[in-house]
Amino acid sequence: MTPDEFRHAGHELIDWIADLREGIDSLPVLAQVDPGEIRARFDATPPHGGDSIADLLTMLDSDIVPGVTQVQHPMHFGWFPSNATLASVLGDIASSGIGSLGISWESSPALTEVEEVVCDWMRQLVGLSDAWRGTIHDTASTACLVALLVARERASGLSQNHGGVQGMDAPLVVYTSPHAHSSVTKAALLAGYGWDNIRTIECDERMAMRPDALAESIERDVAAGTVPAVVVATVGTTGTTAIDPIAEIIQISAQRGVFVHVDAAMAGSVMLLPEHRHLWDGVEGADSVSWNPHKWMGTILDTSLFYMRDVELLTRVMSTNPSYLQSSGSGGVTQYRNWGVPLGRRFRALKLLFHLRLDGIDAIRERIRRDLANAEWLAGEVADEDDWELVAPLSLQTVCVRHRPEGLEGAALDEHTRRWVEAINRSGAAYLTAAELEDSWMARVSIGVETTERHHVERMWELMKRAVVASAGDARWA
Amino acid sequence: MTPDEFRHAGHELIDWIADLREGIDSLPVLAQVDPGEIRARFDATPPHGGDSIADLLTMLDSDIVPGVTQVQHPMHFGWFPSNATLASVLGDIASSGIGSLGISWESSPALTEVEEVVCDWMRQLVGLSDAWRGTIHDTASTACLVALLVARERASGLSQNHGGVQGMDAPLVVYTSPHAHSSVTKAALLAGYGWDNIRTIECDERMAMRPDALAESIERDVAAGTVPAVVVATVGTTGTTAIDPIAEIIQISAQRGVFVHVDAAMAGSVMLLPEHRHLWDGVEGADSVSWNPHKWMGTILDTSLFYMRDVELLTRVMSTNPSYLQSSGSGGVTQYRNWGVPLGRRFRALKLLFHLRLDGIDAIRERIRRDLANAEWLAGEVADEDDWELVAPLSLQTVCVRHRPEGLEGAALDEHTRRWVEAINRSGAAYLTAAELEDSWMARVSIGVETTERHHVERMWELMKRAVVASAGDARWA
Repeated sequence: MTPDEFRHAGHELIDWIADLREGIDSLPVLAQVDPGEIRARFDATPPHGGDSIADLLTMLDSDIVPGVTQVQHPMHFGWFPSNATLASVLGDIASSGIGSLGISWESSPALTEVEEVVCDWMRQLVGLSDAWRGTIHDTASTACLVALLVARERASGLSQNHGGVQGMDAPLVVYTSPHAHSSVTKAALLAGYGWDNIRTIECDERMAMRPDALAESIERDVAAGTVPAVVVATVGTTGTTAIDPIAEIIQISAQRGVFVHVDAAMAGSVMLLPEHRHLWDGVEGADSVSWNPHKWMGTILDTSLFYMRDVELLTRVMSTNPSYLQSSGSGGVTQYRNWGVPLGRRFRALKLLFHLRLDGIDAIRERIRRDLANAEWLAGEVADEDDWELVAPLSLQTVCVRHRPEGLEGAALDEHTRRWVEAINRSGAAYLTAAELEDSWMARVSIGVETTERHHVERMWELMKRAVVASAGDARWA
Repeated sequence: MTPDEFRHAGHELIDWIADLREGIDSLPVLAQVDPGEIRARFDATPPHGGDSIADLLTMLDSDIVPGVTQVQHPMHFGWFPSNATLASVLGDIASSGIGSLGISWESSPALTEVEEVVCDWMRQLVGLSDAWRGTIHDTASTACLVALLVARERASGLSQNHGGVQGMDAPLVVYTSPHAHSSVTKAALLAGYGWDNIRTIECDERMAMRPDALAESIERDVAAGTVPAVVVATVGTTGTTAIDPIAEIIQISAQRGVFVHVDAAMAGSVMLLPEHRHLWDGVEGADSVSWNPHKWMGTILDTSLFYMRDVELLTRVMSTNPSYLQSSGSGGVTQYRNWGVPLGRRFRALKLLFHLRLDGIDAIRERIRRDLANAEWLAGEVADEDDWELVAPLSLQTVCVRHRPEGLEGAALDEHTRRWVEAINRSGAAYLTAAELEDSWMARVSIGVETTERHHVERMWELMKRAVVASAGDARWA
């Protein structure tokens, strides 16, 4: 394809995207397709080519969009917000168009240095001190894996340079909360710690890790001759956005030299608001911190920030340094290949740069304040209504609720919850998540799509109240 | 930013990209900047926003493009080709605009099923049997890490479910070639095997792994009570595109139940040509295979294919399955979060889909044949010229050369090589890579940028012949 053909096709595609976003609220939120239905629309054998952009746009309309759950839809309240703001989409397009290759400083000095600049801007915007240096990973799962690898190597005296973690005399141990993201356990298993060496620390009634239980668990391990290696603390758990007590966790960990990784994937966005930074008080003492602008803040996926204080340790553990990647005459430059798993990287910093410059931080902050207020409003409505309950304290923008009519309990209540949530989701009118919390099911209404205004939240609440009546009409207990 | 503002800004940006690509050969290949120079063009404190797209395009021109080494430039012969074909850029733009979130089948059925379809098309296009199922990772480094994790778990009887690799009685061992990519060693270290448990197997004069040396090494380990876990074989090494003997390696490994991962990151593209598939004869017996359409084939970064035969094993090792990610009523669907490290994924399959449909496989195949012929031409010229030598047999499109005038050896020869390569690179007229091969330096001319025609290769050869004369003029030995 020539640049001129691209110019023509690109304009068509931009218009198609603008139209999609303009009309998004007429689409169902949940993709209304059965398993295999989208796959069946494509030939089983490879295409020969020769299609035009018009053919491709027709395909997007007829075969792709119907299979996409519209997380940019104002009635999407599922999982966590995954905003792909159009300002950041432009940054992503610029990155694609430039087609830069990040494998060393020399292969794209701008890719490297703009990532440094933008990570430092983001550091300042969430109030972290200049002791931290940052990079962009694809997701917080990857960031957590990197943190657990670095912690493993710190606790084992760089065992990778000898017999590996295989050669350890006493096992290294990971501590986290039962409400931590599934990626924490996954990262611990991938890093080789083993299931037997993951401690799930008891939580309080706010679903936050109990510092006394953590201290006891660490001391038990020390007494048993095992080696406490790392605590993963969460600021904004996936289920209920609970906040682990960072300062106390760090104080306890410091006594035994335990590495602390703070997973603020979701709550990082609220740290853009100075009035909420008390939620991670003590974070300066952590060893690493990650948070995802690609969630609530809205810099399109994949934009996950990862900060460390001891970059020398990080780069010793993650280093890649063959001769064909040495940059001539460029001592002292940052080589991001030594900060993570992949060698090659895209120019992801442009997404953040465009987002900040086009939308502006003030507008982003206002939007986050709007969402917090909307969540407070909904939580108030739920609390005021008979038969409804908040099942977790509201700490950010996710409202965790249950409809619990008199006499409904146990399996029947779970069935009711899942049924009314699914009824809303299947309708396509809105989407929210059913999730397990301490062995029973709840509904999570996670507010924060860029286009979600108060009236959308009001409409969601109406849908919920109607759905539970319909569900009750079907139910055995009704 | 509203969809209408995006429409306007997007058109401007598309034109900017088309202009950049149209005028790319007037830009220097290597970014002509010093360390810190790009960083210094940006404020140290975060921007307030309120910029227009015109401001951003001005910034791209003045502060970004000068800092980008232009790997899309027809005179770029460095590293490996990293083509960002404009057809695939359009697919990337579509993906960004849709803003889909891949965390489960339900969060985007199309994202999941189109990835299945496209990976299967690509499987057919390189002639793999239908025993293989594929996914898209960011890079081959990540694919290699996944392979080494799966191999670790297979060899240890899923140790992650118990004491982890920490709990092993006898160490697990990794085998690879000294010419394997740096990411192999890195992956082995990250997966916890440890440096002491990585065996670097001797190679033959073609820089391919010697099967007899591999067999001996494995038997030595078995005799010593250690556990041979995995061999990483390379089809197209980074230095010289050497080809390890896949069939023999697999035969030897099978006798001891050793996992075989085939890293065809570079050479995968040549498998699009049936006449070259003999290069990985035996590949059907491997356990996993990876290759990068984002290199020579030209589907923009990050598009790294990873195929496995035993998907059940893969998904047991890489599984993530909390309640909030369960898809209702969708048993039997593929959950790609269980195929790799990150939970969330972008709609990467659109890049391949657009590339195949717009450019067409026939044109892609023709281009690859063109590049092979250009490399043969250059290798012939080098072989015919006094004082020049091919330092490795030509197996794909990378010509490994040295200018070696009578009497020049050792450190002085290395100095000469690095000097003339650097002179070309610094000039901005072209770019090639200096790399170490068996303790001395060579120059790699890696052909395969989409826009590189025969006359560009001819010009490169002229530049090389001129550069060595200039270097000789400076040299102590001259």
